[in-house]
Amino acid sequence: MKLRALLVFSLLVFAGAAVRSSGRKEAGATLPRYTANGQLLFPEGYREWIYLSSGLGMSYSKAGGDQFTNVFVTPAAYREFLSSGRWPEKTMFVVEERESASEGSINKAGHYQAALAGLGVEVKDSARFPETWAYFTFRAEATSASPVAKTACWHCHEDHAAVEHSFVQFYPTLLPIARKFGTLKDATAARP
Amino acid sequence: MKLRALLVFSLLVFAGAAVRSSGRKEAGATLPRYTANGQLLFPEGYREWIYLSSGLGMSYSKAGGDQFTNVFVTPAAYREFLSSGRWPEKTMFVVEERESASEGSINKAGHYQAALAGLGVEVKDSARFPETWAYFTFRAEATSASPVAKTACWHCHEDHAAVEHSFVQFYPTLLPIARKFGTLKDATAARP
Repeated sequence: MKLRALLVFSLLVFAGAAVRSSGRKEAGATLPRYTANGQLLFPEGYREWIYLSSGLGMSYSKAGGDQFTNVFVTPAAYREFLSSGRWPEKTMFVVEERESASEGSINKAGHYQAALAGLGVEVKDSARFPETWAYFTFRAEATSASPVAKTACWHCHEDHAAVEHSFVQFYPTLLPIARKFGTLKDATAARP
Repeated sequence: MKLRALLVFSLLVFAGAAVRSSGRKEAGATLPRYTANGQLLFPEGYREWIYLSSGLGMSYSKAGGDQFTNVFVTPAAYREFLSSGRWPEKTMFVVEERESASEGSINKAGHYQAALAGLGVEVKDSARFPETWAYFTFRAEATSASPVAKTACWHCHEDHAAVEHSFVQFYPTLLPIARKFGTLKDATAARP
């Protein structure tokens, strides 16, 4: 009887270990975390999140720049999107800006990525933000950041992002998923 | 006694499940796998590997193209590189080529990524390849590929890659790691 109890206990312990082990990288480090005064903590480890796509010199005006932009999303949110075409609460995106370089090493034409030039974060967290989505810009070496004014990012994402507040029209591997689940705000306009 | 045997068996089963569960994404799906006749199987799931960097129109000649190239590496190899500046056996890189597009949706300048245009894989597997590194090009819909001729990729990687056969000079987050561990082939020439 004692052995039977031990058996049950062992099963529970190992089942728990299996769950924790498989979920550690997915959840623990990839939920938004805030300071006591409501600043978002820098998303450490974002380079190991799921990569969505890159642009070069993308601009909403005719005056384009020459920076690369790399977009990453939290792994758990990505998996949820694949299965529903929607972003779950606590989704975080990072847009990383990098300088572009040319003609270095054996490269003779085109552009490759160089130094970090900026970093922005988008968070879906309706429990904390009445407008559901919030935006943060991290200055160099900053460990936390306050949400930026609604006019800076929110309105454009609200008006022009293809799925909720995300520019899925520029993420070629996600666009077919959104089509499949019918989650594009406007299936025609969203087509790049 | 029977119960004791069941206990031991259960422990083994659950320990095994824990290992498989935690290692599934890291190892199981991200080691090179081959057909019976030595072709590399298509690296399913590479979009969930670790992203290294992107280029646009990168070329070794003056005639650059207009495609994006996104580079991914297997997660376990990436972690090993972070701790040693070297690539372990069974490392796989994928270079994904994508068409570039402009002026779609609200984009007015610059370039964003569109349809898949090609896919190449680099594998470090000295147990299988006498030259340690081998290269594969996957045609659309191909499920496996034979190594390409040594003249196609191997020589250029041998002569010009900054670390072993990898172009770390174009991966801004890895370059400082290689410097730290002194694994750049030529610290001056490798600087982009």
